[in-house]
Amino acid sequence: MGWNKVAIVGVGMLKFGEHFDKSYEAMIGEAYLAVLDGVQKGIDPKDIQAGWIGTCIGSLMGSELISGSMLSGIVGLAGIPVTRIENGCPTGSDTFRNACMGVASGLYDVAIALGVEKMREKTSDEGLLAIGSAGHPVLMRGGTAPAQFAPQATRHMHEFGTTKEQMAMVGVKNHYNGTLCPYSHYQYEITIEDVFKSPLVCWPFNILDCCPQTDGAAAVIICRADLADKYTDKPIFVAGLGMGTDYQFAAEKESFTEFIATKRAAQQAYKMAGIGPEDIDVAEVHDCFSITEILDYEDLGFCEKGEGGKFIERGDSKIGGKVAVNPSGGLMAKGHPLGCSGLAQITELVWQLREDVIPAQNEKRQVEIKRGYALQHNVGGTGVANSVVTILTK
Amino acid sequence: MGWNKVAIVGVGMLKFGEHFDKSYEAMIGEAYLAVLDGVQKGIDPKDIQAGWIGTCIGSLMGSELISGSMLSGIVGLAGIPVTRIENGCPTGSDTFRNACMGVASGLYDVAIALGVEKMREKTSDEGLLAIGSAGHPVLMRGGTAPAQFAPQATRHMHEFGTTKEQMAMVGVKNHYNGTLCPYSHYQYEITIEDVFKSPLVCWPFNILDCCPQTDGAAAVIICRADLADKYTDKPIFVAGLGMGTDYQFAAEKESFTEFIATKRAAQQAYKMAGIGPEDIDVAEVHDCFSITEILDYEDLGFCEKGEGGKFIERGDSKIGGKVAVNPSGGLMAKGHPLGCSGLAQITELVWQLREDVIPAQNEKRQVEIKRGYALQHNVGGTGVANSVVTILTK
Repeated sequence: MGWNKVAIVGVGMLKFGEHFDKSYEAMIGEAYLAVLDGVQKGIDPKDIQAGWIGTCIGSLMGSELISGSMLSGIVGLAGIPVTRIENGCPTGSDTFRNACMGVASGLYDVAIALGVEKMREKTSDEGLLAIGSAGHPVLMRGGTAPAQFAPQATRHMHEFGTTKEQMAMVGVKNHYNGTLCPYSHYQYEITIEDVFKSPLVCWPFNILDCCPQTDGAAAVIICRADLADKYTDKPIFVAGLGMGTDYQFAAEKESFTEFIATKRAAQQAYKMAGIGPEDIDVAEVHDCFSITEILDYEDLGFCEKGEGGKFIERGDSKIGGKVAVNPSGGLMAKGHPLGCSGLAQITELVWQLREDVIPAQNEKRQVEIKRGYALQHNVGGTGVANSVVTILTK
Repeated sequence: MGWNKVAIVGVGMLKFGEHFDKSYEAMIGEAYLAVLDGVQKGIDPKDIQAGWIGTCIGSLMGSELISGSMLSGIVGLAGIPVTRIENGCPTGSDTFRNACMGVASGLYDVAIALGVEKMREKTSDEGLLAIGSAGHPVLMRGGTAPAQFAPQATRHMHEFGTTKEQMAMVGVKNHYNGTLCPYSHYQYEITIEDVFKSPLVCWPFNILDCCPQTDGAAAVIICRADLADKYTDKPIFVAGLGMGTDYQFAAEKESFTEFIATKRAAQQAYKMAGIGPEDIDVAEVHDCFSITEILDYEDLGFCEKGEGGKFIERGDSKIGGKVAVNPSGGLMAKGHPLGCSGLAQITELVWQLREDVIPAQNEKRQVEIKRGYALQHNVGGTGVANSVVTILTK
């Protein structure tokens, strides 16, 4: 095992979906209670010495002004330091990364990372599909999220023969997985034909090639690795933390068939963990659009460059396949509330690695843990230029 | 010396003021060049392994969508991890704090913390005075920044006999200091009478009791303490890092004559540094309003509770006084671009502790360094419930 400084001793999340009836405060409070409940041997809240909160859209849309003290105040921990992180789609995973550095720095023994996002409570002008139009006059004006990812799809189809059928299979797999996961926003299966018949958003993406807009909150409690036994018999260790960036402007990018930020994040995380992609049993990766997951297979090293389409087609990424990808349903079925997506992915992976939580939910969705490693991944932010990869182990 | 893990090896900032002619990108680029220039023995940019960027208002106002990759992309470091921090008024100082944890965690040897804010480029509805009206329906609607700080002033006047004259003296001192500092937005002296004659904003604050709206950018390069010699003969060490929070709602606050978040942050930082307030030679503290600096004297332990008004009246906080407070001009004269205020304060304190930079600017503003410690402080965010305190030493 590589880095042996930080252990996860509790995870918890709300069922993803529409939470019009819940305020940010209520969602923070519920995620906090869920994570306390997720600490096997229990935890005195006074043990929590620092916090990090990830949230993205609320302040961007002017609907909420969130700073760190919102977390500590609501849950009755007013006093402890809390940093607010905002880093596009990897907001939740970068929140976790910074919390891990806080503990590894020696400043804090026990910390909480919590992500929250209300994606539904806004006008259609401000939806995820349109959010790209906010902001930078050159980079983003008129550039919606689907329009930022579509060129990757068309170029991948052109260079490697990837098909719309293969892309649709990502949604088919992830929606099936979502039906097994009680925390998933969407709970229905789809077929390739359903994807093709669904409304076109931006060629080659039909609406069922896109993740939905979802409200959610999730939280993780971490501690110094040597203190983990106090809280749980089954600690999960942080083995690798990687983050990569790329140039934001399309004209500056070196390639349209990969996300270099992902490759850089993965390289760092694998190196730190002292393992390679072949050691991963289960992964929660960024499938904001169907092509994204296909690129992820390649960028994360699960298959060779250009083979991503065949990887999904062969069933290599299903539960029971070579590496189970998005057993939770992924962004596409479980949902993608930006500030907490990464923390919800980590929650799923901790459950999978523990092997004692998921069977009680639905045993069909427990991935067989053979090699003992799990990988979490997000990519996004302005110009799809930020990526975070986390590697966890038993 | 307490914590001996992180050294500051370079600082740099833009002159604060109105930068309508500069984009966020230009300001980031200029602050980056300034900080490289501030590394005494020079630095190969490739040595910088990670970054943290602090910025607050841009995305809040929808005028800019900034994620971490903006920093790395603009300065030619695309690839390195960059976290975006947003934490209200302490955004800049919390950006520095997280960068320090990143280095102390062992993950990165050298890192950059950069803050940038364009406060001028927006409608008057969206100004700092009005910003409190964005967001939370109960907490903030109609609650502007002056209205959030005014009750502290009236209560302090009531309980301790603090006067409007004493409050005005804060502005008089800081504006005088600003005339000595080439980086200050405002470069003119004011009198107590000027403060009284200036337009009333929210009693007891006239406009000259309030900090202005200012554009700015500042950056700091840090490294593992044992590597500092490679970059400079005069490293400045991070001795203490504190952050405190409080409840956000006024009804939940225990006191209106102090900021508990500040006291908590200061306690942590002093303890970590193994020193007390009597060891501080020079401090850059949060003077968003005149009363804030008076509360800071007390909350940071420079004087007894209730003595803040007399502290400024006696001249204890002027350059040459007991502890020189805001020799840069402070938020009130130098300016308060939220995302970078803390980093600009650290820049000033590094210059003061080095004793070789400021004499070339204006020797009248060099504080005599007798005890070897400097203190940086911000307080703010939603409900004035976040505070960061940093202690630096030679």
